[in-house]
Amino acid sequence: MSGEKISLAHGNGGKHMRELIENVFARHLNSDHIENPHLDTDADAATIELPPGKTLFTTDGFIVQPMEFPGGDIGSLAVHGTCNDLAVSGADPYFLTLNAFIEEGTSIALLERLVKSIARNAKDSGVSIVAGDTKVLPRGQGGGIYLATAGIGVCPPGVTIKMSNIQAGDHILVSGPVGDHGVAVMLAREAFGMRGDLKSDAASVLPLTRAIRELDGLHFMRDPTRGGLATVCHEISLATGLQINLHGPSIPVRDPVQSVCEILGYDPLYLACEGRVVAIVAAEAAEKVLTIWRTLPQGKMAADVGTIEQGVARVQIETELGGNRILEELEDDPLPRIC
Amino acid sequence: MSGEKISLAHGNGGKHMRELIENVFARHLNSDHIENPHLDTDADAATIELPPGKTLFTTDGFIVQPMEFPGGDIGSLAVHGTCNDLAVSGADPYFLTLNAFIEEGTSIALLERLVKSIARNAKDSGVSIVAGDTKVLPRGQGGGIYLATAGIGVCPPGVTIKMSNIQAGDHILVSGPVGDHGVAVMLAREAFGMRGDLKSDAASVLPLTRAIRELDGLHFMRDPTRGGLATVCHEISLATGLQINLHGPSIPVRDPVQSVCEILGYDPLYLACEGRVVAIVAAEAAEKVLTIWRTLPQGKMAADVGTIEQGVARVQIETELGGNRILEELEDDPLPRIC
Repeated sequence: MSGEKISLAHGNGGKHMRELIENVFARHLNSDHIENPHLDTDADAATIELPPGKTLFTTDGFIVQPMEFPGGDIGSLAVHGTCNDLAVSGADPYFLTLNAFIEEGTSIALLERLVKSIARNAKDSGVSIVAGDTKVLPRGQGGGIYLATAGIGVCPPGVTIKMSNIQAGDHILVSGPVGDHGVAVMLAREAFGMRGDLKSDAASVLPLTRAIRELDGLHFMRDPTRGGLATVCHEISLATGLQINLHGPSIPVRDPVQSVCEILGYDPLYLACEGRVVAIVAAEAAEKVLTIWRTLPQGKMAADVGTIEQGVARVQIETELGGNRILEELEDDPLPRIC
Repeated sequence: MSGEKISLAHGNGGKHMRELIENVFARHLNSDHIENPHLDTDADAATIELPPGKTLFTTDGFIVQPMEFPGGDIGSLAVHGTCNDLAVSGADPYFLTLNAFIEEGTSIALLERLVKSIARNAKDSGVSIVAGDTKVLPRGQGGGIYLATAGIGVCPPGVTIKMSNIQAGDHILVSGPVGDHGVAVMLAREAFGMRGDLKSDAASVLPLTRAIRELDGLHFMRDPTRGGLATVCHEISLATGLQINLHGPSIPVRDPVQSVCEILGYDPLYLACEGRVVAIVAAEAAEKVLTIWRTLPQGKMAADVGTIEQGVARVQIETELGGNRILEELEDDPLPRIC
């Protein structure tokens, strides 16, 4: 059916919907390559077994244009986004559910590529997609495909990551360069006349979080997605009442990301990353976390980018020239929408 | 903020999004009336504790026009839809996540009414909404609001409801009249020049499923949503290879539903219900289930509507005049889209 397009009948509960679920979703999510005995398209709900430990539950929605871009697609984002929310909470993800809202007229070949990407990325992250639902949106009432995933994970004993652990004196670490995802999607979408070999950083952060989640002195982790590193800093400042001091020259930004941002007037600190971790750690643990991260392929450019202090609840950044400026909370949209 | 409209900035991760989440979502989902300590908008994932028993996980997506209709709205559907999938599997629902895809320009007053409806219906069903996410769709790329919910439930010991329990000789019971939801939404949307006091049947089916889920002889339950009673029968026939014989005159259909269907040429057996249960039971258990259901307010019109037989895997219906006709699997869309 891959030469066909999605019609309203693919969402009506009848024969065409059943065939779409069997031939596209179930076929790739439980295939010869991907063993997934939990997925039972005859059942209203999947039976799952969880290991002992603290159970976590979360969800995320995904809209991105274009749906395929260098380094990823909306399917890989949908798997990593929810798994990464569990990962930065210190958990291992076990089970995902998948919702697809598909616009009438969408090519089934595209849908099939995305479902294959979902299956491959779920396998790589060690999660099973155990239940799903599909709705078809009338033509003109959807931007192609919107996805939502919900995930269940379990924290190993001894992991106690939470916002309220954060203290004045803590250091702010990032696991890699910021802004790659934002710029890669922007360049893939907009006719700026610019080209580059930039790829999205979209990836599982599990190797990064598993490597450090049980360390003494690790206080909090978050993945800097919508709103970027600056927004994570604002969230921390608002929740704790503490001041965030970023050190601009220490923040890793790839040259092509910096160039594109300078030309277009964007600040990479507000651009989404989809495969990075911000860790807040006690001062004495900072070097240890950086050393561990730098041994991992996705942590080679990890850096200590600032500190948390008593003071006023705001985010400021020390610039290259030694001055300080306030990083404002993102208000109206200065960025092209990429998520 | 209820006089305002949703803008793209409500989805950018910054200040406007934070205020929307605090003032609309968190405010109503964890209010003075609705205690919901699991909802922590500072966390990437919610910590949940589950009672012992078989754990079930499921998800559902929701699109409906109009978003508010007699007897319900997309918010009540989003709570009941996922809770009902857990309920017909024999479980008690405990936790939900909520995804909202909101079109730019949507009125915040409407959104607020829907979030209040979600909160009220979740409370009535005994579930906590513990995590959520919001995405804003550019104007023209969404039909108002799309919702997705995922839910976790737990089956009490001794509940063993599954498709493979179904045997030749079983009876097919419905808990109430069919087609009310489909017709109510249709009349609320289309300018047919018809009016009636028909209300959607959208409701929790938990009272119906809890009352019978531990009975000997209960083999399977499903809620006849998209595609209606006819589609549930096809799903059973396809999965089991058995023949379904419906007895037309026994199927409860309210007079106004029948009238609207006759005028417009629809078959109520294919119309969605959102608060009914189809139960497949051993012949000797049928009367007992009906007796129990009929003591409940939502089960007063419960009926035995057919049997399951060896034969050919198809669905047939005996008509008022004693003839038999085949009910075909729904193919192209003969119905106005209501979900």
